[in-house]
Amino acid sequence: MLRRVQFSDTDMAGIVHFANFYYYMEECEHEYFRSLGLSISTTGPDGVTIGWPRVRASCGFESPARYDELVEVRLYVARKGVKSLTFDFEFWRDKTRLARGTLKTVCCRFHPDRPIESIEIPPEFADKFVESAYRPDKSPSSRED
Amino acid sequence: MLRRVQFSDTDMAGIVHFANFYYYMEECEHEYFRSLGLSISTTGPDGVTIGWPRVRASCGFESPARYDELVEVRLYVARKGVKSLTFDFEFWRDKTRLARGTLKTVCCRFHPDRPIESIEIPPEFADKFVESAYRPDKSPSSRED
Amino acid sequence: MLRRVQFSDTDMAGIVHFANFYYYMEECEHEYFRSLGLSISTTGPDGVTIGWPRVRASCGFESPARYDELVEVRLYVARKGVKSLTFDFEFWRDKTRLARGTLKTVCCRFHPDRPIESIEIPPEFADKFVESAYRPDKSPSSRED
Amino acid sequence: MLRRVQFSDTDMAGIVHFANFYYYMEECEHEYFRSLGLSISTTGPDGVTIGWPRVRASCGFESPARYDELVEVRLYVARKGVKSLTFDFEFWRDKTRLARGTLKTVCCRFHPDRPIESIEIPPEFADKFVESAYRPDKSPSSRED
Repeated sequence: MLRRVQFSDTDMAGIVHFANFYYYMEECEHEYFRSLGLSISTTGPDGVTIGWPRVRASCGFESPARYDELVEVRLYVARKGVKSLTFDFEFWRDKTRLARGTLKTVCCRFHPDRPIESIEIPPEFADKFVESAYRPDKSPSSRED
Repeated sequence: MLRRVQFSDTDMAGIVHFANFYYYMEECEHEYFRSLGLSISTTGPDGVTIGWPRVRASCGFESPARYDELVEVRLYVARKGVKSLTFDFEFWRDKTRLARGTLKTVCCRFHPDRPIESIEIPPEFADKFVESAYRPDKSPSSRED
Repeated sequence: MLRRVQFSDTDMAGIVHFANFYYYMEECEHEYFRSLGLSISTTGPDGVTIGWPRVRASCGFESPARYDELVEVRLYVARKGVKSLTFDFEFWRDKTRLARGTLKTVCCRFHPDRPIESIEIPPEFADKFVESAYRPDKSPSSRED
Repeated sequence: MLRRVQFSDTDMAGIVHFANFYYYMEECEHEYFRSLGLSISTTGPDGVTIGWPRVRASCGFESPARYDELVEVRLYVARKGVKSLTFDFEFWRDKTRLARGTLKTVCCRFHPDRPIESIEIPPEFADKFVESAYRPDKSPSSRED
């Protein structure tokens, strides 16, 4: 996914505020669902919604992004579990890697009047996700201590 | 730090959008700096700014937060390096832990017309940070696979 | 309401991004509801929610706000209609007025499976709102053309 | 400009949070600048930045937008002043108008160590902006009182 850095993504340090990388990951993840004909929020006739809350998110930042730049966000299906999905992400501007991140997400049922409950990924979803052969390098970057 | 969950922090799933936990961590970190008489952005007479960009951020989500709740954010200095600081965070609503997170941040010089450059933490900062004796448990939570 | 300007509220121009003034207004409005023992989102046993979507919002910006400043947000009930409420706001930092804004909001019923529907403000709400005697000056500021 | 509604644009009422319409306007405005070969932030060799802070912003909301919808944002140059630009916006989803907004913005010089100062729009900008022949209807919508 190509994402144009918006002015409001920046902060007074002149670079993209780090929390925006999580929004970029989410946009890319949702575009991936969309590309498979799936939605990350499906409400049935019974009012029960199937959604994908996060259990873990992380990101390592290697090089800053700035206003108006085009950032390429690459998604890899790192792991398809019984109830969870783990996506790895890389962020690139041309030949410079800006960041690497991970989202772990769990398939859940949102009932109007019951607690959120994790469920096995329904086959209409699970059948479409394929773990990536390629996995981005996860070694820590060379940023100083 | 006590943080009231704002309406705009929620999403259509009815819970706090996960990316907001990173803003909560940052607010708490900046309040910690403030409590020490420090600022996370100091510009000298030469126009050079000392700031603290992130090299890594992560968060594990254990229980959802909702509109109007009061969330307690607890900060622990996990590690004081030569150039970096690592903070651990816990999020609590009463007796329920909602999440645990980490921010690793590097002391940097922002020159108007040079690349951002990491530097050793100046003593007027370093002298004030004290590593926490207590460290929050880092084992993964019991969320399903 | 006193609001500390957060780092993430700023943009690369070094000042608070204008859209944040709308969040500040909303925080102040919700605090006003809270101070009256009311909530801006109340879901009944039938699953129907009473909420307050906006029909109009505006803000005039007079002086920039910056990181770490304390901004005082003042709310005035400008008009209590049959179905709507109009709030005026002023933003001050010490003796400097930063901005003036307005939110017009309509009492609505959110049914799980029907369109959003505007309703007369229920008496348990309407009885508590009192129009302000004082109204902030609404003349345009002296900013150039 | 076509803008996909992101999940994080929604709130617990299930619709796009109103403040996001200001971000949509800004994205559209910046795309307009880009389409003219201009940037909304230009820093000269002397470290002085030409930018466009807002003096006024407003929006009237007519119909809610929801996750995953495609919203068309239309920009009209309402007025080209000596120092200011006023843009009108309409938001459409297919044949439904969702909102109408306005941004008034002033050309300013950001000096590293002086207050922000409004200036006459430089000709390399002014020559490219053309006031729209068409102006969106500005009468208030039929939302209830």
